[in-house]
Amino acid sequence: MSDFAMIQAAAARAKGHVRETPLLSSPFLDELTGRRIFVKAECLQHTGSFKFRGGWSALSGMSEAARRKGVIAVSSGNHAQGVALAARIHGVPAVIVMPKDAPALKIANTRALGAEVVLFDRATDDRDALVDRLALERNLTLVKPFDEPLVIAGQGTAGLEIAAQAKAEGIENAQVLVPCGGGGLTSGIALALAKVAPGLIVRPCEPAGFDDVLRSLVSGRIEKNVQLAGSICDAIITQSPGEVTFPIMHDLCQPGLAVSELDCLKAMAQAFLRLKIVVEPGAAVGLAAALYHSDKLPAGDLIVVASGGNVDGEMFARALATLD
Amino acid sequence: MSDFAMIQAAAARAKGHVRETPLLSSPFLDELTGRRIFVKAECLQHTGSFKFRGGWSALSGMSEAARRKGVIAVSSGNHAQGVALAARIHGVPAVIVMPKDAPALKIANTRALGAEVVLFDRATDDRDALVDRLALERNLTLVKPFDEPLVIAGQGTAGLEIAAQAKAEGIENAQVLVPCGGGGLTSGIALALAKVAPGLIVRPCEPAGFDDVLRSLVSGRIEKNVQLAGSICDAIITQSPGEVTFPIMHDLCQPGLAVSELDCLKAMAQAFLRLKIVVEPGAAVGLAAALYHSDKLPAGDLIVVASGGNVDGEMFARALATLD
Repeated sequence: MSDFAMIQAAAARAKGHVRETPLLSSPFLDELTGRRIFVKAECLQHTGSFKFRGGWSALSGMSEAARRKGVIAVSSGNHAQGVALAARIHGVPAVIVMPKDAPALKIANTRALGAEVVLFDRATDDRDALVDRLALERNLTLVKPFDEPLVIAGQGTAGLEIAAQAKAEGIENAQVLVPCGGGGLTSGIALALAKVAPGLIVRPCEPAGFDDVLRSLVSGRIEKNVQLAGSICDAIITQSPGEVTFPIMHDLCQPGLAVSELDCLKAMAQAFLRLKIVVEPGAAVGLAAALYHSDKLPAGDLIVVASGGNVDGEMFARALATLD
Repeated sequence: MSDFAMIQAAAARAKGHVRETPLLSSPFLDELTGRRIFVKAECLQHTGSFKFRGGWSALSGMSEAARRKGVIAVSSGNHAQGVALAARIHGVPAVIVMPKDAPALKIANTRALGAEVVLFDRATDDRDALVDRLALERNLTLVKPFDEPLVIAGQGTAGLEIAAQAKAEGIENAQVLVPCGGGGLTSGIALALAKVAPGLIVRPCEPAGFDDVLRSLVSGRIEKNVQLAGSICDAIITQSPGEVTFPIMHDLCQPGLAVSELDCLKAMAQAFLRLKIVVEPGAAVGLAAALYHSDKLPAGDLIVVASGGNVDGEMFARALATLD
């Protein structure tokens, strides 16, 4: 099956389960930059991030025999909740391997969604060995966070929605700014748009200092981040784009932008004030690029993906403080 | 034309202009109360509240001759912005009469949406005389905030959406909790549901101490609030239900609930944490009733309208603080 056919199949399986999220806009945001800005509010997806799309696609797309035995995933947050809920709705077991120092709320949420959470110590435990052992012992199927065709196809369903919503708004050409970690969402959306809305150009966005994808797109080969921690955008920090996702992005995307943490906090505050949505720091990099760095982008409309909203009250209060 | 036909006509005029807002849910909210809760996220409407529906209906429904001369409205906030944006899109002038002590942000927003803002002093000016004089001098048509059939029909379009979305979720019977000030939204939704989804029972919700509608529904005649200020739910404080809206609510609604300010702040925090939406205090009374007082309601599913999200960062931070 072609990549695009896989996205169509994922969309068919998602019907009635994955939420079609709205494409929002505000005249105030348009006036900030002198162009039209549309925001795909994927923070309103089940479990508060786009990750439910990929989790649902993986669970619904695997064989009945594999699914019945259960799934395993490694995640400190959004992927964990996406896979946990998809497994719960399918009525199958999910084991989520999470670092001991993951936020207590995210661990509690993952458990509340019915998953068995297995904690590991980042300093002393061999995470991959732990996952392999659990998968083998219990016959679990691993659901990778991004470098997996079924997951990419699931994230790509957001691209089909963007294409239809852009058409309804009369948009034929636009830059599409997508928060990018390992590249699952970015490559999925790029595959969908290349087929059904080729005037919509995907640009992955990242936090400054963690711009492995931007550098990889420029150099033409997979580049790595030097650091892997120390950003408020933790949800989208990965070492490098994936073996599966990078070639797709290299073929279909244009280089994106890297933005500062302060830009992210300010963009979260604008999303609060003008769109009435909750966006987490890593999910705000696209909106930050649109609002504060559009001078580095070709003229015309901008479509921004706000990819998640799983942020605690304390961090959100920091964002609100930028309004003063 | 019947009330329901007016809502259908308003919906036809709204197509492509008024946003269809999503019906959201979260397993975490369901678990809090042991029943299913669905939230109509009307805070995601243009201008951040349902008021744009009524403003659009009034502007698009009046005669071309009247519209061309322009409109006038009195409001300290949400109705002001709804009418201002509807007038701007129609390309006609809007004069909004606002109290001098209205929040600076709301005055600035209304001006930024292209309206001429005329300020009055609550203590010394005769507001109604001022509005009459301006309307007469400039041939402006008054758009009332709730006691006006075209406005009620516009708000009723939210009811048509709720009916369709509930049907898609398989909901035939539910209590529908609607934040209620003068009753425009409540009566509009009640008219729509009575016709297309009679198993959905509307209950107006209010802040404790400002429960004129609840008392009116119980006594069978229009009751008044003693106080008109001093609530964080200011957006839905009116003296009494309207002459037009009360008979509709009396016919079609069941008594609702009155909730405390703390309940509202806690409900805002849950909407942040579980739904990723921004809800203002007055718009959170329905969710507060659902989350913290469902023992006073018949068993079964609850549908809650989150009617607006125009809240400043400081008040929102107060709501977030209830999470600690």
